[in-house]
Amino acid sequence: MTKHPAFRGEPWSLREQELDLGMLAQTESLFALSNGHLGWRGNLDEGEPNGLPGTYLNGLYEEHPLAYAESGYGFPESGETIVNVADGKLIRLLVDDEPFDVRYGTLRKHERTLDFKTGTLQRTVDWVSPAGRAVRVSSGRLVSFRQRAIAAVCYEVEPVDDAASFVIQSELVVAAAEQLPATGSDPREASLLAVPLQSLGHVSHGGHAMLLHETLHSRQRVAVGMRHVVSGPDGTHLASESRSNLARITITASLQPGQKLRLVKLVGYGWSGARSMEALRDQVDGALTAAVETGFDGLLAEQKKFLADFWAHADVVLDGDPEVQQALRFGLFHVLQAGARAEARAIGAKGLTGPGYDGHAFWDTETFVLPLLTATLPDAAADALRWRWSTLPQATERARQLGLRGASFPWRTISGAECSAYWPAGTAALHVNADIADAVVRYVHATGDAEFESGPGLELLVQTARLWESVGHYSVGGQFRIDGVTGPDEYSAVADNNVYTNLMAQHNLRCAADLADRYPDQATALGVSADERTAWRHAADAMAVPFDEELGVHQQAEGFTKHQVWDFRRTGDWQYPLLQHFPYFDLYRKQVVKQADLVLAMQLRPMAFTDEQRAGNFAYYEQLTVRDSSLSAATQSVVAAQTGHLELAHDYLAESALIDLTDYEHNVRDGLHLAALAGAWMAAVYGLGGLHIGDDKVMFSPRLPPAISRLRFTIPVRRKHIRVDIAAEAATYTLESGPAVTITHHGEDVTLHSGKPVTRPLPPPPAVSPVSQPYGRAPARRRVPGS
Amino acid sequence: MTKHPAFRGEPWSLREQELDLGMLAQTESLFALSNGHLGWRGNLDEGEPNGLPGTYLNGLYEEHPLAYAESGYGFPESGETIVNVADGKLIRLLVDDEPFDVRYGTLRKHERTLDFKTGTLQRTVDWVSPAGRAVRVSSGRLVSFRQRAIAAVCYEVEPVDDAASFVIQSELVVAAAEQLPATGSDPREASLLAVPLQSLGHVSHGGHAMLLHETLHSRQRVAVGMRHVVSGPDGTHLASESRSNLARITITASLQPGQKLRLVKLVGYGWSGARSMEALRDQVDGALTAAVETGFDGLLAEQKKFLADFWAHADVVLDGDPEVQQALRFGLFHVLQAGARAEARAIGAKGLTGPGYDGHAFWDTETFVLPLLTATLPDAAADALRWRWSTLPQATERARQLGLRGASFPWRTISGAECSAYWPAGTAALHVNADIADAVVRYVHATGDAEFESGPGLELLVQTARLWESVGHYSVGGQFRIDGVTGPDEYSAVADNNVYTNLMAQHNLRCAADLADRYPDQATALGVSADERTAWRHAADAMAVPFDEELGVHQQAEGFTKHQVWDFRRTGDWQYPLLQHFPYFDLYRKQVVKQADLVLAMQLRPMAFTDEQRAGNFAYYEQLTVRDSSLSAATQSVVAAQTGHLELAHDYLAESALIDLTDYEHNVRDGLHLAALAGAWMAAVYGLGGLHIGDDKVMFSPRLPPAISRLRFTIPVRRKHIRVDIAAEAATYTLESGPAVTITHHGEDVTLHSGKPVTRPLPPPPAVSPVSQPYGRAPARRRVPGS
Repeated sequence: MTKHPAFRGEPWSLREQELDLGMLAQTESLFALSNGHLGWRGNLDEGEPNGLPGTYLNGLYEEHPLAYAESGYGFPESGETIVNVADGKLIRLLVDDEPFDVRYGTLRKHERTLDFKTGTLQRTVDWVSPAGRAVRVSSGRLVSFRQRAIAAVCYEVEPVDDAASFVIQSELVVAAAEQLPATGSDPREASLLAVPLQSLGHVSHGGHAMLLHETLHSRQRVAVGMRHVVSGPDGTHLASESRSNLARITITASLQPGQKLRLVKLVGYGWSGARSMEALRDQVDGALTAAVETGFDGLLAEQKKFLADFWAHADVVLDGDPEVQQALRFGLFHVLQAGARAEARAIGAKGLTGPGYDGHAFWDTETFVLPLLTATLPDAAADALRWRWSTLPQATERARQLGLRGASFPWRTISGAECSAYWPAGTAALHVNADIADAVVRYVHATGDAEFESGPGLELLVQTARLWESVGHYSVGGQFRIDGVTGPDEYSAVADNNVYTNLMAQHNLRCAADLADRYPDQATALGVSADERTAWRHAADAMAVPFDEELGVHQQAEGFTKHQVWDFRRTGDWQYPLLQHFPYFDLYRKQVVKQADLVLAMQLRPMAFTDEQRAGNFAYYEQLTVRDSSLSAATQSVVAAQTGHLELAHDYLAESALIDLTDYEHNVRDGLHLAALAGAWMAAVYGLGGLHIGDDKVMFSPRLPPAISRLRFTIPVRRKHIRVDIAAEAATYTLESGPAVTITHHGEDVTLHSGKPVTRPLPPPPAVSPVSQPYGRAPARRRVPGS
Repeated sequence: MTKHPAFRGEPWSLREQELDLGMLAQTESLFALSNGHLGWRGNLDEGEPNGLPGTYLNGLYEEHPLAYAESGYGFPESGETIVNVADGKLIRLLVDDEPFDVRYGTLRKHERTLDFKTGTLQRTVDWVSPAGRAVRVSSGRLVSFRQRAIAAVCYEVEPVDDAASFVIQSELVVAAAEQLPATGSDPREASLLAVPLQSLGHVSHGGHAMLLHETLHSRQRVAVGMRHVVSGPDGTHLASESRSNLARITITASLQPGQKLRLVKLVGYGWSGARSMEALRDQVDGALTAAVETGFDGLLAEQKKFLADFWAHADVVLDGDPEVQQALRFGLFHVLQAGARAEARAIGAKGLTGPGYDGHAFWDTETFVLPLLTATLPDAAADALRWRWSTLPQATERARQLGLRGASFPWRTISGAECSAYWPAGTAALHVNADIADAVVRYVHATGDAEFESGPGLELLVQTARLWESVGHYSVGGQFRIDGVTGPDEYSAVADNNVYTNLMAQHNLRCAADLADRYPDQATALGVSADERTAWRHAADAMAVPFDEELGVHQQAEGFTKHQVWDFRRTGDWQYPLLQHFPYFDLYRKQVVKQADLVLAMQLRPMAFTDEQRAGNFAYYEQLTVRDSSLSAATQSVVAAQTGHLELAHDYLAESALIDLTDYEHNVRDGLHLAALAGAWMAAVYGLGGLHIGDDKVMFSPRLPPAISRLRFTIPVRRKHIRVDIAAEAATYTLESGPAVTITHHGEDVTLHSGKPVTRPLPPPPAVSPVSQPYGRAPARRRVPGS
């Protein structure tokens, strides 16, 4: 776990004080800007050097055939891949005819700062050209949270010692080759990825330009336009040109020391599979006209306001571990960027920060990202769930194809169609459906949004409940069994009665029945009869939950605890992640857990376990869990805290929060791990904060590890906020506004009245037996200043 | 189940009395000739019309990359496909300049006969050209059992009414396009299959010609040569020519009615991945020179002698169902053709009769084909096992890759390398290893071949026993468990403690330990210690064999009987085979059986079950088994007979025996189902004959269904033969020669002295409760003449 040495530990920003070309691809992900609608990787303004150039538009993808050497019925035939569209970040500079390129000349200073309060990426460069011309370049970049189609750059250049002539080329460029991970040497894919966009037209005049393209196979159209506001000394000249894959505004100026050339570049994007090219063109021109009117300073002011509103309730203050404090805010900022304006489109596992996982959305969104958004930006959570709802036609068709009723949502997708080409770890992971239902219930709980609840919420619950009722069956003994599915742990597959799946399905069935009771007319319109509701409740009540009586622990799935335990002592460090060094055949038949599965069930369905079971299960699965998935540490942190392993909870919280800043999984170049970043927030709030949102009540059982002296956060209840302030000895709860609310503190009822803080002491931490991890897989023990 | 109406029910041949162009591809498979070394499909001499031209050389394959949209560690990267090499069958004819083509002119008579006693395909055609010239064409074709590199055609043509001029073009042709089933639209595969062979040279002079080729990727070299002996009237003229993909001998003659033009064409093949082109050229020239010396009549005499020797002990006489009688001999003949001269190469699932399954060999060979060869041509069985033994380097490397010790033989292969691209139904089906071990034990039992036993036999048993010991583990309760494997039934996968696998592994472990005891020096040389032998026996004794106490039946695999039963009533006829209409996801999690699995365990390990278990298990699995595999009916026949369901045994025997003659699975065009054909022999001998080869004794419990009046066959014991003659009331056993042997008849010891028949009455058939099949899946009730 090595952190970029050039990063300074600042509470509200990520600052890089030196440019390390070996870290370029990683920093491009870390410094990515996005609003959930469009995303710019943190590439240098001048385009080169780069790790992986990237401009992504949410929902824009290219199709490609999925190849199978041995195919099977129902295997998806077509995959979707996020497309790197026209690069609007690009501003090339020539100083006395020499290209500004940090690889040449002398770089006296290079600083980049991602500011969590302004939502900007700032850059300052002092550079001396090979010919000896010293210049200063400053740029500020934002992707607007308020004007979702707009990104903007404010670019300034000045000579330092002597006069110099400058040429700025501000461009829109469609890269000749998409730098996406290929899934093989299939020449079709290579050709497809090489030229995913074909030109439909281009235009330029004055400081305006636009490129129009269409994806080759998915037939989505994209318009990208730019406008410029230039201020420079007399003689500053501007020219424009365009062709199929390039639009360029060229600005020339000669500057004396003390003079500056300032360029504001506004870039607007529009894309659609339905709207005509002309409609998109007009849409982008409209957005750009509004943005020009707002101006860069106006956009910046909007950005600050948006973020101030966000942080007012989203911030988590954690005293005692400044590195984790910074990482938590970094994570909150990036999750916000991924979800803020995703609106009727998916929130991908990497947001719009890189091409990893082909840009697909998984269950990560509902289970890890939406809890955070629900608490901090509930409208964004609702939008994400409305996106799922909008894909019901594909999900019901997929269920039909699988021989099931209701809806079966895809394991991975951009459009809503299943794109998983390895069904045992894709299609068979039906739990995604219960995860979606759980996110619906959580959102409605936090907001009381009746319109959503009775509409998309009810339909999502009904269609997923139907899935579970049809996939399960009653055993001779009367248990409701769900056989042959895959739980969260991807080192097991196609097993019977996965506890996580079954408990989440149980919750799904019950909540669907309850909601159908609450909205009888709407339920009837969806064809839900009283018999169906009864059947759902009956299935939920009879749900099989396998337990190993000999060992006294739950079985991750039926038979799991009978399997051979993986030989961790004979597994070298270099053999992790295991899936890259061992066949599924070997992994599936042994007790080895890639990521929290039963432990996640304990986090999400805590009431289904006794305290004793929780402690026993955690200890048992802890020694089998290798954390080869970024989704694991946060969950382990939550349950470690719940079971009294507070230092361990701190360790896992840190691992999850720092996953990208330390490039823990060596793949941050492909994009950030949003679920782990959001998971770190859960580890703080659900774990150390001891939050549990029960059916009737919000409960807290906070406990802090020794190194953390204070933890503060805010939790919404029906759009009112409870501020929680936890110190070593006591916790203080404050209801911000609204009618009184009763919460529990370590099981004790506490009634909160608006504006009146209530303080309760923390009980002494319980005595716990130590738990252990697989050989070599313990998390780094958190060392914090002074400890 | 429709039989080609032009087939006559003859006991020793398959005769087609009319040409049906719609059945051309099917008859090409049925009329295929092979000796296990090289194979000619039953294409018409003149090449066109055709269904699927095919000339196959055992072990000659082309490599192609296996594509995975989502790959995994240990997935095979390269596949192997049988190659259609130079067509040496081709003899084109022109009659007064008009091509002889059955699609034009008038076909007065067209008869083809595959003769099981001469090993030839005869053809007689009376044809009138569009211009009115009547001619008779007669051809006889053989692939020599004695001279394994040689195939031969005797081709005669004569004018019927008027004089005519004839041109015969006898050719070797490399087809421009291989007509193999593509696994997708992958252009690499398409290009690879389009031109799999590149020319290395060609030569022709007089009646001689040769083509030399190499496969593009696997770099195997092929030489094919031809020689001709022509007899015709004065003025008969011969010319030769050759180029890269064509060698042609042209014969011209003018014939008067009563005159004949006779051409003997000898074709020789040589191929190798190691030997040089020059060595192969000389090898083929040598083989052809010998064949010319033998002459067509000499080859024919050798062929008859070889077959007479074979039938002397291989024939099964079944009175009462002439259609099945013919089919049994058809099957025996084709299994002989597949195995006779395979020698150090694999026996593919379709022999050399078509390109189905890419020409791969599966466990079919050891479990279905080798029992028959062991009983009828034991040296061929030994050769097949020596081939497996020769692939031990690949199998030990594969085991290492899977994290196992010993050897893991491939699920499908030509060369010995794993070519299965869907691991849950390939690599996970580890039972192939125990199937190989079982075939070794069976062969040694029948022959007493100590050299094989102490050499390849011991090594195969040791390396497979090591596999089982390493793949299994002991549960807390002390059971030896084999988790996460796939049994024979391909509608379940990756399950724990598959009974078939575990019982076969148990047998494998025990036999390996016993054999290591018997050959201590050789065992020590293989590194087998006393401890290892003890460990094998211990694992065998502790083997888990899951049994459902509530239902009183064995579980195909742990948990199987808890799964939902497939809804057969709602499954239409058109939805079979299920795998083409339902996803694996749906099939795997339900109780539905593609092919005998637990029932096969009862056939192969009968002593592991009580009579009551056998009856209960058979009834239980019978109602779940849909027979979507050609490997199922024969096994169901054997166990139906063992459990007293004699008419059902007859039905299944007929289904298996007639599988290709009726094109039961609608894919006989791609080649014959050798395992099912061999299985029909097992159904007769093991089922109705009630044969069980115990460790110390050969046991018979014969019983005939009402329609079958008599059944006769021969069984070898240590290379002596016991003739068995079963009638409705009694069975007669005759030891042909050698010292006295004690067998059992329905449990009663019977000692046989050479040449002295012993007759014992059959006990009355036991009363049995009827069993049922899934809705719509009952076999056709056998209606035989007079019943």
